[in-house]
Amino acid sequence: MTSEDARPDGSGRRVTLAEVAERAGVSRSAASFALNGRLDQRLSAETMARVRRAADDLGYRANVTAKTLRTGRSGTVALVSDFVSSTSFANSMVRGALERLREAGLLLFTVDTQGDAEVEQRFLDDLIARDIDGILYASMFTRRVEVPASARRVPLVLMNCEATEGPAVSSVIPDEEQAGAAAAQLLLQAGHDRGIWFVGTFPPGRTGGDAWHAWGPMALPLRLRGLRDALQDAGTDLAGEVAIDDDWDVRNGFAAAQRLLADGVVPRALVCINDAVAIGVGNALRRAGLHVPTDVSLVSFDGGLLAAASDPALVSLRLPQVEIGRRAAELLLEHGEARVERLRMPPTDGASIAPPRD
Amino acid sequence: MTSEDARPDGSGRRVTLAEVAERAGVSRSAASFALNGRLDQRLSAETMARVRRAADDLGYRANVTAKTLRTGRSGTVALVSDFVSSTSFANSMVRGALERLREAGLLLFTVDTQGDAEVEQRFLDDLIARDIDGILYASMFTRRVEVPASARRVPLVLMNCEATEGPAVSSVIPDEEQAGAAAAQLLLQAGHDRGIWFVGTFPPGRTGGDAWHAWGPMALPLRLRGLRDALQDAGTDLAGEVAIDDDWDVRNGFAAAQRLLADGVVPRALVCINDAVAIGVGNALRRAGLHVPTDVSLVSFDGGLLAAASDPALVSLRLPQVEIGRRAAELLLEHGEARVERLRMPPTDGASIAPPRD
Repeated sequence: MTSEDARPDGSGRRVTLAEVAERAGVSRSAASFALNGRLDQRLSAETMARVRRAADDLGYRANVTAKTLRTGRSGTVALVSDFVSSTSFANSMVRGALERLREAGLLLFTVDTQGDAEVEQRFLDDLIARDIDGILYASMFTRRVEVPASARRVPLVLMNCEATEGPAVSSVIPDEEQAGAAAAQLLLQAGHDRGIWFVGTFPPGRTGGDAWHAWGPMALPLRLRGLRDALQDAGTDLAGEVAIDDDWDVRNGFAAAQRLLADGVVPRALVCINDAVAIGVGNALRRAGLHVPTDVSLVSFDGGLLAAASDPALVSLRLPQVEIGRRAAELLLEHGEARVERLRMPPTDGASIAPPRD
Repeated sequence: MTSEDARPDGSGRRVTLAEVAERAGVSRSAASFALNGRLDQRLSAETMARVRRAADDLGYRANVTAKTLRTGRSGTVALVSDFVSSTSFANSMVRGALERLREAGLLLFTVDTQGDAEVEQRFLDDLIARDIDGILYASMFTRRVEVPASARRVPLVLMNCEATEGPAVSSVIPDEEQAGAAAAQLLLQAGHDRGIWFVGTFPPGRTGGDAWHAWGPMALPLRLRGLRDALQDAGTDLAGEVAIDDDWDVRNGFAAAQRLLADGVVPRALVCINDAVAIGVGNALRRAGLHVPTDVSLVSFDGGLLAAASDPALVSLRLPQVEIGRRAAELLLEHGEARVERLRMPPTDGASIAPPRD
């Protein structure tokens, strides 16, 4: 990423990067690094200072953001989310975006609105007044969002959410339906063709956890659809679905599995909506004397810290958070045609799936 | 928090909040809420608009930040950290600060530098140029930091870290030494007086995990000191310390416990440097046929998601992250004498401690 967007100097002549490089006695690319604020390249402080002095002397003004974002003004991008930076569920998206933007010499501000529309509006007004170059609008879990009109006054890409009005706004989301199908295929390949239960639907009348405003996460219907379609393609179906009480956490997974076992069901495989639920399910199975994976296979979604902490480690379809962050940042930098990109959820390297015992 | 810091209008007369309230036909406090951007109070959109119109008509300009921060300029505070928002270890600090500042009508921007001094400097320059009102300077884990000079150009409070030069800069940190002593007391109260091991020291020559720049966390020496002092006060001591290989995670805890057991040691109680290490230790004990807590008691530090996911749930001295965030925000709002505050680490409600078997 080089820049020759210098403004004309007093004489009306456009100062080029090559002239700055020549005056500073460095290569053109070194001059570009020094002036474009690229942070992944190392130049000595002395070299940086020499290039900057040469640029000042010649009246060269790099405008890196004008090349990367059409409205580039300040070299900063804002990540506006509900809960991403203030909870521990989706932080790798921040990291992915941060790293990609840093490669392009841009800084990232993160703000959490905690789902309050009024706070969000204040943030957006404030950010736009501060001439940010673009907005990454993110959700802690995958859902449809109404993007506030003011967010569209600058380049905008959605992370982990989709605009209610469809692909008019660029968006990068995990491919939840593919992940559901992958969960089915992992079990089918191990020889499972019956006694497969799903854990993690909501009770009647509920659309999500209370703490998250009961925003219906897209993960649930899409994972279920991918899972059921793939099982049906193989001539089978789920044995049933187990609802949790109020949220997708360890406690709820534990209680759901205990209810299932109390009903006299001995599942051969359980597909859990996320790792926390799967940990709770695994704890309930162990207390009932059932061993994972020899008695019951477990597969889940998320692929986070909890999947690795489980013993055995969970086979989990991983939310590609770093990749979503990076890709969303790239779409923002490219500022091309609006499009929705779905990124594959790959399985983690766990040991929670085995062939059925009988 | 009310504001009468209106600037003089054209006539030189200072417009008061009471006059705005009277014109809008609302109470003084409702007018204050509407104009000060207090977000925890609800007024109808119609009332908000009427108050704002009255303020505009009279030339009243609220300046809430001037009352809360002496240099108040823009109603925003920046949380500058190494990894807090882009990893999943300390996000509750962001939440605590966010909530407290929001109560005062202030917005919070969060930026992660990933420990790069050059990125940090660019952020600080940028933030200060944008007239932020104050900085919360945070670390993912408790450590000593060199605060960049430029961060001191605005009100500054450290979160989860201490300035190398001591209490000249206000700082809110967990009381790690108290937590170490509490771990000892929990075990002593259950009847443990020997066979107590500590897991989580660094191998010779190492001062921290590679991913975290090997910044020596204060947690290790302080927790160990509190632990040993309390044991010695009770006439006993640690049976020994077990070093991990490279980081405080599940894999390292597992390997450390396996080495200890392979050496023929059957511990009666293990104090683990954090929950992740304790989970790995617990997995290794289970595989060796040892049951927590009847065969071996476990106590750890952090008190996060992993402590609750463990079966049995871990008794863990909880890092008071929300409280640190809230308190640091309060010190910033008060802008009083510099001081270092240590917040107590309370034990979680776990079931991983039992009396020794023999």
